[in-house]
This record gives sequence, structure tokens and C-alpha cells, in this order.
Amino acid sequence: MLDLYNVYKGCSVLITGGAGFIGSNLARSLIALGGVKVSIVDSFIPDQGGSLFNLQGIEHQVELHRVDLRDAPAISHLVSGVDYVFNLAGNVSHLESMLNPQLDLELNCVAHLTLLEAIRQYNPHVKIVFTSTRQVYGKPLYLPVDEQHRLAPLDVNGINKLAAEHYHLLYHRIYGTRAVCLRLTNTYGPRQLLCHDRQGFIPWFIRGAMEGKVLELFGDGKQRRDLNYVDDVVEALLLTGASEATDGEIYNLGAPDPISVAELAAELISLTGRGQIRAVPFPRERQLIDIGNFYSSYSKIESAIGWRPHTSLRTGLALTIDYYKKHGQHYLDPHAHLLSRSN
Amino acid sequence: MLDLYNVYKGCSVLITGGAGFIGSNLARSLIALGGVKVSIVDSFIPDQGGSLFNLQGIEHQVELHRVDLRDAPAISHLVSGVDYVFNLAGNVSHLESMLNPQLDLELNCVAHLTLLEAIRQYNPHVKIVFTSTRQVYGKPLYLPVDEQHRLAPLDVNGINKLAAEHYHLLYHRIYGTRAVCLRLTNTYGPRQLLCHDRQGFIPWFIRGAMEGKVLELFGDGKQRRDLNYVDDVVEALLLTGASEATDGEIYNLGAPDPISVAELAAELISLTGRGQIRAVPFPRERQLIDIGNFYSSYSKIESAIGWRPHTSLRTGLALTIDYYKKHGQHYLDPHAHLLSRSN
Repeated sequence: MLDLYNVYKGCSVLITGGAGFIGSNLARSLIALGGVKVSIVDSFIPDQGGSLFNLQGIEHQVELHRVDLRDAPAISHLVSGVDYVFNLAGNVSHLESMLNPQLDLELNCVAHLTLLEAIRQYNPHVKIVFTSTRQVYGKPLYLPVDEQHRLAPLDVNGINKLAAEHYHLLYHRIYGTRAVCLRLTNTYGPRQLLCHDRQGFIPWFIRGAMEGKVLELFGDGKQRRDLNYVDDVVEALLLTGASEATDGEIYNLGAPDPISVAELAAELISLTGRGQIRAVPFPRERQLIDIGNFYSSYSKIESAIGWRPHTSLRTGLALTIDYYKKHGQHYLDPHAHLLSRSN
Repeated sequence: MLDLYNVYKGCSVLITGGAGFIGSNLARSLIALGGVKVSIVDSFIPDQGGSLFNLQGIEHQVELHRVDLRDAPAISHLVSGVDYVFNLAGNVSHLESMLNPQLDLELNCVAHLTLLEAIRQYNPHVKIVFTSTRQVYGKPLYLPVDEQHRLAPLDVNGINKLAAEHYHLLYHRIYGTRAVCLRLTNTYGPRQLLCHDRQGFIPWFIRGAMEGKVLELFGDGKQRRDLNYVDDVVEALLLTGASEATDGEIYNLGAPDPISVAELAAELISLTGRGQIRAVPFPRERQLIDIGNFYSSYSKIESAIGWRPHTSLRTGLALTIDYYKKHGQHYLDPHAHLLSRSN
């Protein structure tokens, strides 16, 4: 395993979407490593997960830029001179992407093309790590899904994330941009919004259990998923960024023990001592873009750079519940439009 | 084979990019069928191929709208009440897409998403035929390339055309939009721009031979391609539009006898009695996005609706040369920026 302190010491790192769920956890890890100059770009688009509270305690150690990635002149200035870009910005909601496809296209394609053009022109030697999604595969033909699986995205979000992956790898091939794509599965942990379920069903279930509510299982709740605790995802980002061998590659993340939605709900009820389970019919607009059972093979990234998740589900969920017991009120927004959850 | 006259008689047809190369040939065929109301949307973006001359002789029989597909209110109005949309608008240049990727994204993704949203809202039962490109496959793993071949576009244009295909098929799956995608190979024939080579290398070679110039072969000129005469492509469009069985499908076009770039040049020199051949090194910016040998299997569309090309290459080239002898001056624009050709 690489010594991440020695890799990043003295380096300048830019995180797009850095005030969001994964971005702010990454920023905290980089600050904790020590000796890293951390800059954050976040446009704080409402409901996308970016918040100042996520940066509480490190706000004086990071340089925060309230800038939209589509602002080419500003982005060109910000990418100049940095050593690493962790490109986490984007719309993450599958359902939202169907309701407002043009906005998803703006945030997931136009923005990344603007960033890549800025890098090509002003910082061609930077390393850029792009976070994509397992959604690019669509309904799996076999399990676990590896990187050779056919690509058939089932919603506008998946289509646009796939195009953004292609852009990153194209810029690698044509211009030598040091780009790499990670396809994330369900990531959970502290600093994920609880006010709606558009960042995935896990925070929605966590909130429901903590509040003693009914956790609704679509269909039989037997859809299996692989869950990654956010610290493991942050480690994957840092290891991927640190390695030259990852340039131009695509890697799945994943977890060794897939769990059903029903099992997750039971685990949360056990951990919180609250909440109940109820099976409900699959809402039609959800079923149309649902992917059924899904879990990924992460053997490619494990072979390449030794990454594997370390946090057990029970530990990760306990840490998450503990965080929200203290800070949950910052992740509830009474003005947010409540949509039913996505699995 | 379907009786196209009876299918389209009394129908209202909208052609996007209808003043361009393939669009104007399609409009002429529909007018020739008789009894069809033909509307054309074209934004006449310079250098994209749309021209009023292409509509000469049918200008009083078509309804022409100088509108950009990204103009949602105007497009919503235009799609209302039509029976068929032939969606041919878009940027076609691979090299241009690398020089101005954001424009390619606007023309090849934003525009189509706007059109599909308009259809979803204002004309959900319309049939829409989208013209995509073999470029979505990237460098072929095997020949001929069928529709199961892996997708790995090699340039921004291919990435965006692939995303646009996905949008069309997604709208079919989620909303029942009657969409179908055709993946075109090299199409040639009357009404293709001769002033630059961004609509493919064929018109560039035709012009070169007619003017007695040197036809430059990149590398050894042995790259094999399948060429479709535009009338055959128009027939594919009309047959695909007319069939319910094509809804939600993707079909390659193609030709039975692939030909090398060198053989094509020799054929043109034989037909015109002019021109010379010279082998030159592959320009680097071309080689990076070149796909090598490429020809498609068209057996899927042949099985489904009986389409196959009817025009021999020699006949098609002779008809094309004859057209440009009469009208070539309308396809030369001295102000167009001349780029070297693409194979």
C-alpha cells in the first residue's frame, strides 16, 4: 500500500463538488494527512448536497470557491498549477435526471467538458480522478458486474455519466490527460443529505429508522446491493490519484458481501432500536429505471493498487448513525421537495 | 417491400436538418412520392451543409422553418401534429468535434434532448427516426461490425452521437416514444458540401478528381470502407419510418462490397478521366481518431424490413459526378476554412 502522506505532501489538490457528501469527506482526509493545499470548487446548487456545514472545522484550512464548473474562465484559473483534481461534481439523482434531463446534461456533461478543456489548455500534466457510477451498466447480465460488462444506462443520468467517462478517457488517449474513472456503487456515511432520497435509499432508511418511521420496501425488498462506507471510497480516490498505473483506466468499486434492501432495513432497526418494515408495490416511475440485483466486482482495482473496503457494514452504519445523532439537523431541509426513495 | 406511397400518403413529415445533404434528398423523395406534407427545420449553421439550393425546385412544396433545435418553444410547436420525424440534424465532423467539443455537445445532445422532450409532451405517438453513425463503435474488433459490437467512440462526435442514441431509446423504453436509430456508414451523393472535407472524404475526392487535382491517400490508402449512395440511405429512412417493428431498435446500414480508399480514388480517376493519386503520411491529429478498416453488417435491417442497397458504387459515383458537373459551384464556398480530409 502506498504511503499517502508522502504522495500528497506539499501537493495542491482541487476537489470539484468538494462541499458535497464524498467531496467534503475527501477534503477532511486530505487535511488530516497534513501538508496538502486543498481547494474546493462547489456551486452549492440547492439539493445537490453541497453545504458549508460539511466543511465545519476545516473551513480555515481549505480554499473555497463558489464557482460553477461551466464557468470556463474561472475554472481555467482554478485548475492552473494544481497537482490533482478529484472531479466529484455532478447531478447524482436518477429520478431527477428524468424530470429535468437538460439540467442533468448541463451538470454531468457540459461541466466536465469545460473542466477537461481547461485542463488541456492550462494544466495538461495534472492527474484527474472522475467519479462515475455503476448506473452506466444498466440491468446486469451477470453478477458480480466487472468492467467488461456491456454498457446500457437506464436513465438520463446514466447516459450522461457514461458520456462524461468517455470524455475523460478520450482526453487521456488524444491529449495524454492523466484521467481515470471510478464507477461507484452505493456509497453511504456521514455528510449525506437526509432531506430527500435522491442521493440513494440508504440515508433515507437511516433517517427513517432513527425517527422510528416505517421503512418501505419496494416489491419484496430482496434486491441485493453492495454498499461502500465513504471512508473506503475516499481511500480509493486517494490511492487511485497517487498511482500512475491508473491513468486511462476504469475501475469498479464494490463490497465483498452484497446485502438485500430488506436486510439493510433490519440491520438499521437493530442498530437504532427503532423503525418498522413494510413492503409496498414498486412505484411505476421507479420500476422503469430500477436495475434489480446489482453488485460489482472490484477485483480489477484490488489487483492494480491494492484497494479493498475495510469497514464492515455494521461498523459503517453505526458510525453513520452516531454522526447523524449529533449533526442530523444540518442534513434536513424542510424546504426540500420530498420524493419517494430510490433503491 | 412496403408500398411507401400508401404509407406516407396524407401524412405530415418533419425533417430536422432537412436542408442538408441527406435531409434534402429525403425531402425530394417524399415530394416525389406525392401526397405528403413535408416540413423542414434547419438552422443553416454555416458549414454544416444546409443550403437553400438543396431545396431548389421543391421550395414551394415544402414548409421551411429556419429554427434551431435547441429552441424548445419553436420545436414544441413544430412537432405537434406531425406523423413522422426524421431527425437528421447534427454536427457530423469528427475533427471539428475535437476542435469545438462544446458546440458538438450542443448540436448533438442538447438539441436532441430538446426535441425528445417536445415530442414527449406534445406528440407522444409520433414515429422518430434518428440517424446515428458507425463512429459509435470505434476501432472494430471484428468485421463486418454488427449491432452487438462493443461501443467505444474515438472522438467527441462519436461520444455525443452515442448519448443521443441512448436518449432516443430511453424515451422509447420509458415513455413509449416510437424511436429508432440507424447507424450510417459513409454516405455519398448529390448535395454534399464540397468546400471542406468534414462531411467525409468522399466528396473531397470527387472534387479533387473533377478538378484534376492530386488525391492524397493517408498511409497506404488500404483502409476499407463501405459506401452508401444517398438514395439507398433515403430508402432505408423511409422503410424504417414506415415499419412498427423498428420501434426501439438500432440498425446498421452498410454495403455488400467494401472498397479501399485507394480503389475509390482509382475509380474516380477512371470515371472523370482526371486526377492523380499520391500517398502521404497520416497526419497525427487524424491518425488519433482514425478507425482503420471499417465496414458494417446490414443483415439485421435486411431481415427486419428488407432493406439493402441497390446502387452500385460505379453508378452512384457517376450520378454524383454528373450532378456536380451541373451544380458543383453551389457546393464550393471560398470562405470556408479548408481542412485536410478525413477517411
